[in-house]
Amino acid sequence: MAACVGIIAEYNPFHNGHLHQLARAKELSDCAHAIVAMSGSFTQRGEPACADKFTRARWALENGADLVVELPTLFSMAGAERFARGGVALLGASGIAEALSFGAEDADIGTLRALASLTALEGGALKQRLAAHLAAGKSFPAARAAALADAHGGEEIRSALLSPNNILAFEYIKAIDMLYPGMRPVPVRRQGAAHDADAPAGGFASASSLRAALGRSDAEFLGAFAPKNVSEDCARLLASGDIPCTADALSDAFLYALRRLPSRELAKLPDVAEGLENAIYREARAQTRYEGVLAAIKSKRYTLARLRRILSCALLGITKEKLRANPAPRYIRVLGARKDSLGLLSRLAGSASLPIVTCKADYDGLGDEARAMLDLDLFAAEVLAMAAPKPRAVDYEFARPLTIV
Amino acid sequence: MAACVGIIAEYNPFHNGHLHQLARAKELSDCAHAIVAMSGSFTQRGEPACADKFTRARWALENGADLVVELPTLFSMAGAERFARGGVALLGASGIAEALSFGAEDADIGTLRALASLTALEGGALKQRLAAHLAAGKSFPAARAAALADAHGGEEIRSALLSPNNILAFEYIKAIDMLYPGMRPVPVRRQGAAHDADAPAGGFASASSLRAALGRSDAEFLGAFAPKNVSEDCARLLASGDIPCTADALSDAFLYALRRLPSRELAKLPDVAEGLENAIYREARAQTRYEGVLAAIKSKRYTLARLRRILSCALLGITKEKLRANPAPRYIRVLGARKDSLGLLSRLAGSASLPIVTCKADYDGLGDEARAMLDLDLFAAEVLAMAAPKPRAVDYEFARPLTIV
Repeated sequence: MAACVGIIAEYNPFHNGHLHQLARAKELSDCAHAIVAMSGSFTQRGEPACADKFTRARWALENGADLVVELPTLFSMAGAERFARGGVALLGASGIAEALSFGAEDADIGTLRALASLTALEGGALKQRLAAHLAAGKSFPAARAAALADAHGGEEIRSALLSPNNILAFEYIKAIDMLYPGMRPVPVRRQGAAHDADAPAGGFASASSLRAALGRSDAEFLGAFAPKNVSEDCARLLASGDIPCTADALSDAFLYALRRLPSRELAKLPDVAEGLENAIYREARAQTRYEGVLAAIKSKRYTLARLRRILSCALLGITKEKLRANPAPRYIRVLGARKDSLGLLSRLAGSASLPIVTCKADYDGLGDEARAMLDLDLFAAEVLAMAAPKPRAVDYEFARPLTIV
Repeated sequence: MAACVGIIAEYNPFHNGHLHQLARAKELSDCAHAIVAMSGSFTQRGEPACADKFTRARWALENGADLVVELPTLFSMAGAERFARGGVALLGASGIAEALSFGAEDADIGTLRALASLTALEGGALKQRLAAHLAAGKSFPAARAAALADAHGGEEIRSALLSPNNILAFEYIKAIDMLYPGMRPVPVRRQGAAHDADAPAGGFASASSLRAALGRSDAEFLGAFAPKNVSEDCARLLASGDIPCTADALSDAFLYALRRLPSRELAKLPDVAEGLENAIYREARAQTRYEGVLAAIKSKRYTLARLRRILSCALLGITKEKLRANPAPRYIRVLGARKDSLGLLSRLAGSASLPIVTCKADYDGLGDEARAMLDLDLFAAEVLAMAAPKPRAVDYEFARPLTIV
């Protein structure tokens, strides 16, 4: 049986860097197949995905992925640690991913392991340093990097710790060590543009610059930095008003969802502490647009992604308690497969340690907790449908047959 | 002490018919003062009021009302029986309204009483007739009128029972009989345009034709059928984008609120029965606008007002259970008073059998159930702020001093 490498991704949207990573992942891991755990309707940066998950899964399947499963919203829209742990748990539970490949600024696994173990340190002295940097107004990632750099090295470590892909890489390594130590980590050095870079480099553009191109309907830019079938698809979806989905289009839903919640309920949202609930309560009334609320509650202490996630948790009804009660995915939702890799789907069915969901009957067969977790993914898709330039009717999720490419 | 007549109203918006009714109410009841129980942010027809309650209270105070209190949302956005009972209970609890004046197509109190007692009949034969008319596809009010006409008379009764103001008049009379039998009912014959009439008549236009005029920014029409200070105010508020508030502007909030609720929660909304929850569930996903949902769930059986109320109950979080648990208002929220009638406010303070709320301290002093009822009014106002052509920041409700005109 051909080996299979796992990848955790968002493909928001799919671009040439992803194409490159998929190919290198198979090559470096010596695996013929790739299974992707992909964010569904809401992404790690706390916003609706630019396009629906079936479309994004198809893009991946047409460009090197063999099987795409959905990372449940409770994990996709979460900080790096939970995002990584959810993805590793999902791929581990598939029983077919013997390796995990991920992008990183540093692709030497020894260095990554060492840095990962650094970030796992939680000594008292380190905590004091962390608190001091937080008190000085740094965001949590910056304060953690600075504290570790103080303790263990200096500028080089601080910079390595702050590279966005490295941060996820460390979390993947830590999650593998904890959950599936037999899974081989396979880092792929990131090419060209940095994670959030505005300017393309070396033939690669970042996903955020591609989302910006979607926002201005810049088909030429997409053509240059995304595979042809993706850019052509995007041109078509832009013309029909189906993409890009944006948080701004959900502005009224956000305001309404926030105004529904008294301060004591806002305090139950993930990551809300230190009176942030009062600022949210106030600004949800003082502002008249989502972006205004976000700008008004921004401080050095919180990254924008964290604040976006908090507001989207209010929108989707995700609380600290719900996260605590759901430490790992409870099902494997299959979004699509390549026709020539359907054997992988059979292997998944034989080896998965979680129920597999491909149709309504699978959904009906889930236990209450798993069904509640999946209901959240369905609701997230129903909200995403309102975020398109031309809002569309909600497709009944299980009416759609599995995407086979 | 000068006597005081009570009026239950919406003033959505205030027009010449209301001016006439206020004057006639004082005259016919021989009362020097009028206290008005006015719908707050959402009205009996199940929609956001065209303008905020403080503005509408000011219009009334400038045109003959002496004291305006808010009919809590749990009663203002309800069918005729609950609307009337809530208004009578509120005015009765004020301790100062010795009479209740209301418009009616038939202004003879003897006739109204007779008709009212007819509508209160619930005999088995009548129920069978009612069921037969419902089964034939009639709406509830039409079926009830037809059943009563079958039993007691004929076309004349049917027509009297179907006049919209008569329907409210019967409910006022029944509520008075049940709650405050000492309160004098004082019907005022309706002048000119019928309740929902499109065309003005005899110098009067209906509130719905005035809302239509607001919708097309027709200042001339407003000038012809509303008092000068109201029409001038409307022209100013139209120019600033503060009015008219509409359900259509809340379309996204409605869709989001409906999609949040699984069928079993939709079934808990007031008036939802016979599988209507399934139609709402389906259409909240198949449609992309509020008006589309409304049109798609419309059937002969349900009046549009009833369906609008159901959707707005979903928006505001009002359930059958909440209505059952709250049979009557729990506080008297004062919205404003005339400077030369402040004595009425002192009398209210001395004679009311419910707590009076004019400021934050009053709110803080309420019991849990009363505060929850008032929180719903505050939330309704926060949602209404999103319904303006140019959505505005939410004024902190108790930051605003009492409107004194």
